[in-house]
Amino acid sequence: MKKEPIIGIDIGGTNIKAALVAGRKIEKRTRALTLANLGREKSIDQIISAIEPLRKKGKAIGIGIAGIIDSKKGVVKYSPNLKGWKNVPLARILRAACGLPVYVLNDVNAICLGEWKHGAGQGHDNIFLFTIGTGVGGAAICEGRLLFGAHGFAGEFGHTTIKLDGPKCICGHRGHVERYAGAKYIVARAWRKIARHKSSLASYDILTPEIIARAAKEGDKVAREVFDDVGKYVGIGVANIIALFDPDIIIISGGIARAGRFLFEPIRNTVRRTVLGREHRRYRIVPAKLGDDAGTFGAALFAELTSAGSEV
Amino acid sequence: MKKEPIIGIDIGGTNIKAALVAGRKIEKRTRALTLANLGREKSIDQIISAIEPLRKKGKAIGIGIAGIIDSKKGVVKYSPNLKGWKNVPLARILRAACGLPVYVLNDVNAICLGEWKHGAGQGHDNIFLFTIGTGVGGAAICEGRLLFGAHGFAGEFGHTTIKLDGPKCICGHRGHVERYAGAKYIVARAWRKIARHKSSLASYDILTPEIIARAAKEGDKVAREVFDDVGKYVGIGVANIIALFDPDIIIISGGIARAGRFLFEPIRNTVRRTVLGREHRRYRIVPAKLGDDAGTFGAALFAELTSAGSEV
Repeated sequence: MKKEPIIGIDIGGTNIKAALVAGRKIEKRTRALTLANLGREKSIDQIISAIEPLRKKGKAIGIGIAGIIDSKKGVVKYSPNLKGWKNVPLARILRAACGLPVYVLNDVNAICLGEWKHGAGQGHDNIFLFTIGTGVGGAAICEGRLLFGAHGFAGEFGHTTIKLDGPKCICGHRGHVERYAGAKYIVARAWRKIARHKSSLASYDILTPEIIARAAKEGDKVAREVFDDVGKYVGIGVANIIALFDPDIIIISGGIARAGRFLFEPIRNTVRRTVLGREHRRYRIVPAKLGDDAGTFGAALFAELTSAGSEV
Repeated sequence: MKKEPIIGIDIGGTNIKAALVAGRKIEKRTRALTLANLGREKSIDQIISAIEPLRKKGKAIGIGIAGIIDSKKGVVKYSPNLKGWKNVPLARILRAACGLPVYVLNDVNAICLGEWKHGAGQGHDNIFLFTIGTGVGGAAICEGRLLFGAHGFAGEFGHTTIKLDGPKCICGHRGHVERYAGAKYIVARAWRKIARHKSSLASYDILTPEIIARAAKEGDKVAREVFDDVGKYVGIGVANIIALFDPDIIIISGGIARAGRFLFEPIRNTVRRTVLGREHRRYRIVPAKLGDDAGTFGAALFAELTSAGSEV
C-alpha cells in the first residue's frame, strides 16, 4: 500500500523547512525565513507560505518547533526562538488556514522520532537522543513510546547538573551539561587554550565548533584537547542518562556530532569508565544519521501516527 | 467483583516479608529470615516456607527483590543483598515448588507500583519515586507505565553524578547522589560536624539517620544542618530528574524520609531555585504513604497485572 504523503515542517529561529514526506522518501521541499523579529503574525504567514506549494498533495501536517509544546492541544506554550509566542494555538490556526489536520511537537522530539524510524535508532525501543548545537536538547523513547512527560517537556538533558557549584549556564544555574557542550562554551574553551598554547586556530578571527572540529581532524592539538574536555563532561551526563533510562542506544545529533571520533571517543571512554553496572548492559553511543532531515521526517511521522490514532 | 488474593513478597538482605493481598487489604502476613549467608538453596527454602501458609488462598505470587531482574523471564540476574545469586531463574524454581505462577521485579519498582496504585502516587501518571536508605534507589512511572528500560534497571537515581570530581561513592565513582544521601554518609556528615560544634548527638556511641532525624525534630542545630546539607544535594538530583522525566509527583520513600520537613524543605527549596522551566510545571515532592507495605503491595500488583495480561 502506497502511503499518502505528509507535510513535515521544522521551524527554527531563522529558517522554516518544509517537506512532502512519503514513508522514507522526501518528494518535495520548500523553505522560508522565520522572520521571528517581525512578530508572530509574520512568522505564521511565513509558515503558511512554506506549506502552500505542498498543501494539495499532503494528508496532514506535522510541525517540530523548539520549546514547550502541548502536543495534545497543538499549542506552543513557549518557544525560546520565537519572541512573543506564548500559548499560541498553532494547530488550530494552521488548520483554519490550510484545511489539513495539524500536529505539533517539540523539535528534538521530532528529531528523535525521525532517527528512530528511519535513522540511527531503527530497531531499538529504548533510545535517548540529544542534540548538541547552540543549546543542548534531548528526547527519550521508552519501551517504544516517545516520552512527553506530565507537561510535555521531558528529556531536557542540557539543563541537568553534572557539577554542583560549577560554572554558570545561560539559564542562570551552575554546572549544567549545556554549560560545557553548548557551542559558545566550546568556542570559549578553545579561545582560553589558544591564549596559552600554539594552535592553528590562532589565525581565525571567529571560531565555531565546526572550525575547531576541522582543526582536530587536521591534527591540531589544542582543538583535540577542546573536544577531549567537552567529551568528558558530556560522558558524565550520558552515564547519568544510562543509569536513569537504561537505553540500548544513545544518539548524538547536531553539527558538533560531526567532530567524529574526537568527540565520541572521550564520551565513550568516560561512560565506559563511570556507568553503573556496565557488565549487565549493552549500549551503543552513535551519531545521528539523517542530518537536517531528521526533524521534518519526525514531524511528518508524528502527524501520520497521531492522525491514525496510534500511540507515539 | 471480589478480587482473588495475590501473594506479595518483599525479599531483603535480612528478612523475607510475605502477605496475602486482596486489592488494598492485607489479609494475612508471614515472615522468614533470608539467611543469605547460608547460600542460595537455603534462602529459597526460606522463601518457600514464607509462602506455604498463604499458598492455598493465593492466585499468583509477585516478588520484589533488590538487584537487576529480568522480569520477562523471572530471572534474578544479580542481587547486591544475596551473595552468589547470579542468573537465578527464581520464577521457574518457585513455580515448581508452589504450583502458582510467579512474577519477579526489582524491589524499588515494586515500591513504586505500590505507591502508585494505593499510596502517594494515586491518580498520577508521571511519577518518580526514590528510596533513601543504606543505598539510594529509584523507579519511574512514565505516562502510566512502569519504566523497565532495555535491561531492566532504569531509574538508578543513587548512582547519578551531581558533582563531577566530588567525593568517592561506594561504587567507586565520584559525586553520586548516594554519596551524599546514603545512610552511612549522612552519619559521617553528622560525626564531622559534632567534632566541631556542640550537639546533643555527641552523647551517642552509635548514630543512625533516625537518631539524627529525632534530634533535628527536638531542635538540635547540628542535626538540622546535616539534613539541610543532604537536602540540598538531593534537591540537585531531583531537579535533574524533573528535567529528564518531567513527572508531576516525586515520592521519597525509606526511613530517612521520616525526617520530615528538615529533609523536605531543603529539597523543595533547592528544586524551586534550580529546576528548569518552573513556571511551566506543576509538581509535588512528597513522602511515601505505605511504609514497609509498599513493596508487598507492589509485588502483588505486578503479579496481578502481569497475569491478567495488562501492561504494567
